[in-house]
Amino acid sequence: MVKKGVRNGLDVDRMIETADLLATQPALGAFEFRARNQWMRGGHNVSSVRDFYGAGQEDTSRTAAFTLHNDEPDVLLGTDCGANPVEYVLHALAGCLTTSLVLHATARGITVRSVESTLSGRLDVRGLLNLAPDVRNGYSDIRVTFRVDADASDAEIEELVQVAQERSPVFDIVTHGVPVAVNLQGR
Amino acid sequence: MVKKGVRNGLDVDRMIETADLLATQPALGAFEFRARNQWMRGGHNVSSVRDFYGAGQEDTSRTAAFTLHNDEPDVLLGTDCGANPVEYVLHALAGCLTTSLVLHATARGITVRSVESTLSGRLDVRGLLNLAPDVRNGYSDIRVTFRVDADASDAEIEELVQVAQERSPVFDIVTHGVPVAVNLQGR
Repeated sequence: MVKKGVRNGLDVDRMIETADLLATQPALGAFEFRARNQWMRGGHNVSSVRDFYGAGQEDTSRTAAFTLHNDEPDVLLGTDCGANPVEYVLHALAGCLTTSLVLHATARGITVRSVESTLSGRLDVRGLLNLAPDVRNGYSDIRVTFRVDADASDAEIEELVQVAQERSPVFDIVTHGVPVAVNLQGR
Repeated sequence: MVKKGVRNGLDVDRMIETADLLATQPALGAFEFRARNQWMRGGHNVSSVRDFYGAGQEDTSRTAAFTLHNDEPDVLLGTDCGANPVEYVLHALAGCLTTSLVLHATARGITVRSVESTLSGRLDVRGLLNLAPDVRNGYSDIRVTFRVDADASDAEIEELVQVAQERSPVFDIVTHGVPVAVNLQGR
């Protein structure tokens, strides 16, 4: 095999090996991601993200947990110790579309020079506060604008932005929804 | 008016004033949240979250941006500089359900002592890699388990966990989906 080296910060040989492995052993594609969250006060709460299951085993590669703070700005009665949950949704969506774009560019042999995106989502807080039955609680809509520079034609870049939407897990979650089961443990 | 002080870290008087104001001036409920994201390399990209529109004006209360790092763990070809986008979705969901629970507990005069949640989401990475047409890209399902201690009966706590789901913006986004428009700006 001809070694393909690193493109866009991704090990191309390892990427191809991973795809080949998943094609022959589909069970290795099953992942379970996790988070643990603890309320601090008011709108401030903190998640710990570390362990996950994937590629056939519990992953032990992370030496420490990521600690993530949710809070609300002053106007939403918070103490602004972190971005708020709906802002984190925009961050997750931006990141997942970007990673999908870069991954599929790499698979096509395209060198990416820069990817920038700006996102905005409109939301009526009367939903959260139960003040308007006709208003949804979540975003009514989200807009994403990409600016991409790559060693590719404009048409190829347009196709990458398209394939990013077709393959991104968070784009799928946010546009199509996911069943969520919520349980309460006894005190 | 009898001053109600602070409960659960929330200024109860200000909360009631906000609800009264939104009932008479519904346009103040319209918010727009934003994020800007820049690709670094591979699965690593960084969002900046600061400005937003809400309560009838551009908010200027934040003195600095929140900087949020997405990356992927080693097994997903990343350098593990941050949680990955689908883990951020769990963080956002946990935080939003928790804040909704605490907000509505406060409105009901219930003092909350602790809220903890654990979340897990199952996802087949063959979707992202376009290796299995019958597999969705996003989570197939998400499980959330709450443990709540509050100055309330078990039935009241169960009701709080229910109302959190009925009112949480991120729960609405993740369970029902949102239209997302993606545009590409010229180079």
